[in-house]
Amino acid sequence: MELPRTRVGRARSEYGAGVEVGLLLFPDVTQLDLTAPFEVFSRVPGGRVHIVAKSLEPVRSDRGLVLQPTVDFERCPRLDVVMVPGWGQQALMVDDETLDFVRTQSTHATWTTSVCTGSLVLGAAGLLRGYRATTHWAYLDALAVLGAIAVDERVVVDRDRITGGGVTAGIDAALTVVAEAVDRRTAGHIQLHMQYAPEPPFHSGHPATADAEVVASVRNQLEPLRAQRLDVARAAAARMRA
Amino acid sequence: MELPRTRVGRARSEYGAGVEVGLLLFPDVTQLDLTAPFEVFSRVPGGRVHIVAKSLEPVRSDRGLVLQPTVDFERCPRLDVVMVPGWGQQALMVDDETLDFVRTQSTHATWTTSVCTGSLVLGAAGLLRGYRATTHWAYLDALAVLGAIAVDERVVVDRDRITGGGVTAGIDAALTVVAEAVDRRTAGHIQLHMQYAPEPPFHSGHPATADAEVVASVRNQLEPLRAQRLDVARAAAARMRA
Repeated sequence: MELPRTRVGRARSEYGAGVEVGLLLFPDVTQLDLTAPFEVFSRVPGGRVHIVAKSLEPVRSDRGLVLQPTVDFERCPRLDVVMVPGWGQQALMVDDETLDFVRTQSTHATWTTSVCTGSLVLGAAGLLRGYRATTHWAYLDALAVLGAIAVDERVVVDRDRITGGGVTAGIDAALTVVAEAVDRRTAGHIQLHMQYAPEPPFHSGHPATADAEVVASVRNQLEPLRAQRLDVARAAAARMRA
Repeated sequence: MELPRTRVGRARSEYGAGVEVGLLLFPDVTQLDLTAPFEVFSRVPGGRVHIVAKSLEPVRSDRGLVLQPTVDFERCPRLDVVMVPGWGQQALMVDDETLDFVRTQSTHATWTTSVCTGSLVLGAAGLLRGYRATTHWAYLDALAVLGAIAVDERVVVDRDRITGGGVTAGIDAALTVVAEAVDRRTAGHIQLHMQYAPEPPFHSGHPATADAEVVASVRNQLEPLRAQRLDVARAAAARMRA
């Protein structure tokens, strides 16, 4: 059965007027997972982008950049697009307040989306069971533990879920969301404004293309985190079954 | 004459320890021009990234995201890499306090760099005369007025100047800077951590590849700004000659 790609509850103008996007902000977020999609979504004419956190206190990202929420969980309007960026505390996967917020918004949202390890939060909220989905290349096993069909692709669209790979995949994911939630013409305009015709200076962006020595070194750096995330994902999966 | 590519004034470890990077922050900055390079530079082991503004007051970017400076002009240390992001007030091109700051830092810096229309500020500071350089595709004429050899390339390295194209080119530019200022291995590590293996969903990132209708529409949207920037660039060039 071909499921409808769009469940928009109210009229949209040609230019996406009225699209409400919410980007989740939490301590130790990888700031580019949030700021790159913000740049894309904030260019949708007539749209509104909310940076949603538990409170309105400034939040420190994982490498020190401080970001300012625009609305708290309680006052956040119903979102058409909810997006969860990555990194952050492993605890986010078992934080009921966050999981409840994402789950509730997802019930109404047209698109439930993530960048990088944000999909582990969606998964822990029970929102990816049986969905094809992706995450940062290093953490696909944790995503599978949460019931997703974990695939190593840059952007995965499965029904009303759109998940992106690691960090910079947020640009590709956000443009895909705009194309789906508004239209492809608007996404094309935004891409041209942002001159998104990437030319990475090296081929190191994925383990399949990077030098073996670089891959081994980065895998080694990330191994403790990968093991820790797998453990928390197992705990989150056990909580879902309970 | 082949000029030296590196003028590092003190010892660097294998991993770039001690590299001091400063990203200029000003009202109406395009936040991704700053946050994408921040994400890259903040991953250089042992490096320090400063967000430098006239004062420590929070700064509103052009689409509303609020950013927090980490140091003001006066207390900013000598930088190894100074980077100017784009957009912002046209007035920045004729703002002596900003131009003096950039000019002074550039005297000591190993690399003087920019993203998007940040190169117009470098140009207005007299730092690109006779240099090959780039900017957002829409504003190349203003860059030429400031004495640069303006070229429509994604990242341009000419001696100790590295300039990037529009907005998202900041990722490519920053990785290039890391490869030059630290080493290529470090840049490769960072690229793999950030999974920077882009797959733009459309071919709209440059006028050469976007649909003609999209190009015409975006050119039309940007025309008033292009004309205004050209005027301010002419005024800045006249000030330099005076």
